[in-house]
Amino acid sequence: MVVCSLARMTRRSVMNLVCLGNRAVSLLYGNSLRPLHTSVCNSSSQPKAGFKPEKVAVVTKTTRYEFEQQRYRYAGLSEEDLKQLLAMKGSSYSGLLERHNIHTNNVEHIVKSLRREGIDVRVVKRGEYDEEVVRWADAIISAGGDGTMLLVASKVLSKDKPVIGVNTDPERSEGHLCLPVRYTRTFPEALEKLCRGEFRWLWRQRIRLHLEGTGINPTPVDLHEQQLSLEQHSQAHRLTTMDSQRSMTPPPNMWTGSLHERFSKPSLLPIRSLNEIFIGESLSSRVKLKSFKHHVNLLLHRASYYEISVDDGPWEKQKSSGLSICTGTGSKAWSYNINKLAEQAVEEVLRIGKSLTGLEIPLNREFIEKVTDEYNESLVFGPDDRRLFYSVREPIVNRVFSSSRQRGFASKVCVRSRCWDACMVVDGGTSFEFNDGAIATISMSDEDQLRTVLLEN
Amino acid sequence: MVVCSLARMTRRSVMNLVCLGNRAVSLLYGNSLRPLHTSVCNSSSQPKAGFKPEKVAVVTKTTRYEFEQQRYRYAGLSEEDLKQLLAMKGSSYSGLLERHNIHTNNVEHIVKSLRREGIDVRVVKRGEYDEEVVRWADAIISAGGDGTMLLVASKVLSKDKPVIGVNTDPERSEGHLCLPVRYTRTFPEALEKLCRGEFRWLWRQRIRLHLEGTGINPTPVDLHEQQLSLEQHSQAHRLTTMDSQRSMTPPPNMWTGSLHERFSKPSLLPIRSLNEIFIGESLSSRVKLKSFKHHVNLLLHRASYYEISVDDGPWEKQKSSGLSICTGTGSKAWSYNINKLAEQAVEEVLRIGKSLTGLEIPLNREFIEKVTDEYNESLVFGPDDRRLFYSVREPIVNRVFSSSRQRGFASKVCVRSRCWDACMVVDGGTSFEFNDGAIATISMSDEDQLRTVLLEN
Repeated sequence: MVVCSLARMTRRSVMNLVCLGNRAVSLLYGNSLRPLHTSVCNSSSQPKAGFKPEKVAVVTKTTRYEFEQQRYRYAGLSEEDLKQLLAMKGSSYSGLLERHNIHTNNVEHIVKSLRREGIDVRVVKRGEYDEEVVRWADAIISAGGDGTMLLVASKVLSKDKPVIGVNTDPERSEGHLCLPVRYTRTFPEALEKLCRGEFRWLWRQRIRLHLEGTGINPTPVDLHEQQLSLEQHSQAHRLTTMDSQRSMTPPPNMWTGSLHERFSKPSLLPIRSLNEIFIGESLSSRVKLKSFKHHVNLLLHRASYYEISVDDGPWEKQKSSGLSICTGTGSKAWSYNINKLAEQAVEEVLRIGKSLTGLEIPLNREFIEKVTDEYNESLVFGPDDRRLFYSVREPIVNRVFSSSRQRGFASKVCVRSRCWDACMVVDGGTSFEFNDGAIATISMSDEDQLRTVLLEN
Repeated sequence: MVVCSLARMTRRSVMNLVCLGNRAVSLLYGNSLRPLHTSVCNSSSQPKAGFKPEKVAVVTKTTRYEFEQQRYRYAGLSEEDLKQLLAMKGSSYSGLLERHNIHTNNVEHIVKSLRREGIDVRVVKRGEYDEEVVRWADAIISAGGDGTMLLVASKVLSKDKPVIGVNTDPERSEGHLCLPVRYTRTFPEALEKLCRGEFRWLWRQRIRLHLEGTGINPTPVDLHEQQLSLEQHSQAHRLTTMDSQRSMTPPPNMWTGSLHERFSKPSLLPIRSLNEIFIGESLSSRVKLKSFKHHVNLLLHRASYYEISVDDGPWEKQKSSGLSICTGTGSKAWSYNINKLAEQAVEEVLRIGKSLTGLEIPLNREFIEKVTDEYNESLVFGPDDRRLFYSVREPIVNRVFSSSRQRGFASKVCVRSRCWDACMVVDGGTSFEFNDGAIATISMSDEDQLRTVLLEN
């Protein structure tokens, strides 16, 4: 494709399917956000008074239209060229523009509604969203889809700062982490309920990550931003590379010492996962080509090698196409797709069971559907649940590798990388290197909870 | 990791689990390889006379030891540094060296055995293996594991040229596409059987690929070689980029015309797949950074969007984590791992079936194992089978996307990419761009068969 040499942005695959019930509640007093005293066993709790923030940051997604514009502008193409190119690909310029306008109109609606209440509003594009914005705001609104919500949540480390998701394109976005879709166009209603305390707080458990033995200060790579912002991107990686280079050049006696230091220091990463951590091999090319800078890095059909220890149990060597560790919130996201069964598979299992036993096991569509639904539903658990759920994706069992349990619950999962070139992907958006020898400790802590809002549907 | 900035090679994940029976047969006459007249319904056939090639190419794998050496040499490290670095990672230098020696000794054994029979032998590293070698040789021996076998096969387009795999590290490599392991150290025995015709020919069906609408002449990227050979790598991509750039710079009126041309031309790719074609999204960064060349490209949790039509049926929009289309040979490779069920899952299905029906469905370990084994075995079919087997990996079903059948047999599968940045990976080793608008037609033709040898175990 003519556009393949241009910078591009990834589009978050919308896969969160969390459905929550909403219940109206009482108010959180005043303007400040006092930590609410709740029993951690409840998934949600009534506020003591209404919620009326003074300062709200609205973080907006980048629409596909904006993205395509940016990349063609980078290539020196006009709007007319953009139209033709998209048409040739079978995409629709007017369609993209339409969705873009729907989103921007909805953002405008939200912002106006907030300002009408005298609230100080800062509208921030996802690329500009950082810790300073989080500190400034009393509450943060994610204006986009579930992907934007995950990004917004990723920079909120305190369990006191409320994050509210508004789905700005309900027809195209699942928006399961967002408020019910009716509030998208009637946002003042949502604000009123918040003000009156007619809502519930929902604290969602999140995952924390300790990494050691990586050899470099772990530099997170934002997989979305790295593409739009060439500057930021080269910055992040210049640091990474300089670190690598520095540790390569000193003479052996000095070098060994500094390497040991680097290798033994564990660190708590400044990131919390709302959905899942995914560990897997990738093909990453860090090739310094003097004359040539382009190269293609593609997903290879390559197995991931690692060792896993669940709840301080014995280490087990495993080979698979990756390991997923999710929260209750994430149990309906990627983890769900990894583990769910298609009716076709369930039917086949029951058919074999029937033929081996001679029992009258029903094989009609209705029954197969019922069994399949029950099986798939059992994969989902509550956002407030303190347990992690780990699943081995496509385990490879042969002479060398075995797999005791393909999935299960745990309080803590430790993984030691035996990979050539792997990474740990957090909520599908940020990644960390995770190569041979590195150890990740994945756990949960109540202080990492994310404070979100439940509004009646 | 300090080594992450260096070029590295991928290691083929050994996942082929084809087990074939062997039967002794009569001879193929003389030195030349006359096409054998066989019924294509048989998976294998008796040669008419012994097989005595005059010229044999032996293609060797790159051992991990060689690879690590190369990459540390690139960084200016000594052998001693290499030892220390590996030790720190928990890897063993002496272990790598040992496996390397086992491999090279086995290669030497093969080569000596061939030369002792007066056969003209060319030993070729995988990086040097090309069409010229294929043309020169009467037969090609793959000296490595299944990965090397796949590479060797990939450049053999004729159904008359025999390819024989010898597993040079039976303790570490599964070698299911290779001769039985006992011939590794007793290769003269294998040669004698070949000479006497005490073997069978096995023609394995392969997949062919037509691509259209890509906009660029499809340039295959060898995912293994691109890392070891910086020169070749930059060559291949300079071509790709120059193409892209050329199509970007002309003024709109001329440009549109040339784009249309590029978009409408379908082409049969010069490659045949022995295992499978896998189509999926990847994160590929083709960013031209003036001052900085390093960047990380990682597997993103990103869904693949495409449309699929099976056997000229209606097009169906799908969203999944990828699509696999395999041969009988490949039905025990990646496709197998995508589709197989763990006992844990089978147990759960039967448990639900039991609770919903009240029937006495056994749930003991033995029965679960039996059902699981039968289910998994049903995923495997013969290398001579002319059918393709397609499977949708982790299908995503929601308001927009549906999935009628998650997997099935077909004679032809057409896929239209709706992906941002996807590729088509052939046998886990070569890839082609497959972006928005491109259409792939995946089919089989008897003339694409690969001629391999079945020796009694």
